[in-house]
Amino acid sequence: MKIGIYGYGNLGRGVECAIRQNADATLVGIFTRRPPKSVKTLTGAPVYAAESVLDFKDEIDVLIICGGSATDLPVMTPALAEHFHVIDSFDTHANIPAHFEKVNAAAEKTGHLAMISAGWDPGMFSLNRLYASAILVDGKDYTFWGRGVSQGHSDAIRRISGVKDARQYTVPIDEALDAVRAGAMPELTAREKHLRECYVVAQDGADKARIEKEIKEMPNYFADYDTTVTFITAEEMQEKHSDLPHGGFVIRTGKTGLNKEHTHTIEYSLKLDSNPEFTSCVLVACARAINRMANRGATGCKTVFDIAPADLSPLSAEELRSHML
Amino acid sequence: MKIGIYGYGNLGRGVECAIRQNADATLVGIFTRRPPKSVKTLTGAPVYAAESVLDFKDEIDVLIICGGSATDLPVMTPALAEHFHVIDSFDTHANIPAHFEKVNAAAEKTGHLAMISAGWDPGMFSLNRLYASAILVDGKDYTFWGRGVSQGHSDAIRRISGVKDARQYTVPIDEALDAVRAGAMPELTAREKHLRECYVVAQDGADKARIEKEIKEMPNYFADYDTTVTFITAEEMQEKHSDLPHGGFVIRTGKTGLNKEHTHTIEYSLKLDSNPEFTSCVLVACARAINRMANRGATGCKTVFDIAPADLSPLSAEELRSHML
Repeated sequence: MKIGIYGYGNLGRGVECAIRQNADATLVGIFTRRPPKSVKTLTGAPVYAAESVLDFKDEIDVLIICGGSATDLPVMTPALAEHFHVIDSFDTHANIPAHFEKVNAAAEKTGHLAMISAGWDPGMFSLNRLYASAILVDGKDYTFWGRGVSQGHSDAIRRISGVKDARQYTVPIDEALDAVRAGAMPELTAREKHLRECYVVAQDGADKARIEKEIKEMPNYFADYDTTVTFITAEEMQEKHSDLPHGGFVIRTGKTGLNKEHTHTIEYSLKLDSNPEFTSCVLVACARAINRMANRGATGCKTVFDIAPADLSPLSAEELRSHML
Repeated sequence: MKIGIYGYGNLGRGVECAIRQNADATLVGIFTRRPPKSVKTLTGAPVYAAESVLDFKDEIDVLIICGGSATDLPVMTPALAEHFHVIDSFDTHANIPAHFEKVNAAAEKTGHLAMISAGWDPGMFSLNRLYASAILVDGKDYTFWGRGVSQGHSDAIRRISGVKDARQYTVPIDEALDAVRAGAMPELTAREKHLRECYVVAQDGADKARIEKEIKEMPNYFADYDTTVTFITAEEMQEKHSDLPHGGFVIRTGKTGLNKEHTHTIEYSLKLDSNPEFTSCVLVACARAINRMANRGATGCKTVFDIAPADLSPLSAEELRSHML
């Protein structure tokens, strides 16, 4: 399959690396809104201007759109789905239904196939919520995130006056995880599920006490959580907090039996050194499925829920049954 | 969907209970090779003779075949797939390709839809092996089982002269699990992955030392493992070892990045109070998918790899996107 990458940030670079690991995938090129000559790629892949992408319609099987969910993808994915089979990793959960409708209409108009919200949450975590709830009907599921860097929370801290840089780690609370795993089906508040660990580089002479107070009292982001704030130097930030690890847990417990006498626990967890690189791996596997489904005549917008697992794998149906079933 | 249960052992009883938990499923009847009047069902469901099942062709949407993999399913599933949409939980991994071919041919002959090997391994564990390997191309996966009762190993002990009853627990070894989770990608022998814990009721006057030796030296089953043998009374067996718990772990670790500098761990685990009841829950969710796919005109034999996840859930596509994605 011939893949194009549209957008070249952390995610685009991750997809570039992931394509190298998949023998059946080749990278046609990277499309950027920056001046192409100013962009140096990791693997030496060619770079083109974003506005020239339509010239590559016949050379690209699937276009992976690596933009942000806030402002890029709501515009890019519907526009590009009229011309390409596309995939994105749109992750603003509340806006997924609206995004789906727009992308579906655009893709159907010209008989293209699109997939939105591929990644790990939404993505693999969503799949595990679905599988677990379909199996354990009488149960309750929980999603915990972390330990990992939340870009949104880090950005929120950076907007506080006197803050030069910031990194926020979301940390699941062990006691809550244990209670869930034990099948107690607890009702947990936000504060009981996650801690928020903040590392902040303050500007010279800034009032650190005021910054800490502003962080801890910030509504939605921090006020409902136990939050720690640690001031560090720019060097320490660079040295210890440059990576973007993440992960988390999807756990469902449920009851079965004539009198619900048996308890079961299904747990799925991810521990990721690099959030964008893992998301990129999911995107490339999904590109394989979208390419196959498009070749079979599928059109419109899909999500991970609509993809038969076999379509994600490079192995044949016979190989899968022999070696993985 | 209207479901028939063919075979009424532990699994059949589990399916009977699972159907009660699924509002869109009704149980038409239970078909048994025993005299129907001799069978008392858990929920008062009607019992019919196995040979009368063809009289119910028009009343059953999906027939769930609850037989054993050794001798029942290889005969039953192909025979019944000519007349019904069917599902089984065939779990002899090495014989899956041959079973698939026979069931596929039988189902295609009359335009029926069949699914084989639904459950947790094969089943949910297989799915997780597939998803993880499609995402982390450059990696290695491991399946650990337990702590749980292995029926095959328990039966093997019971065949030793002087043994009245036996229960064998397969126990994953924590050190091996930890090494795998850490991304070390170790090469592990059978002995390094699992312990085998045996509880044995000996006949009066039996030579316990000889029994223990025969167990520990039994090829394939025990010789390659560290095995413990504990002799207990029939009362203790009844009191402490009547349940059929099981579970396990599917873990894949892999590398990403330009120079494979990042490690990721994907882990799926199950902790089941009742192995047959959990398998039954998977079978009923799969029956929903098979019913929907058959209504759309699908025929032949499928496995979990061929089922789009959305088809397993009672929720609509819109509800899934809004609440689970």
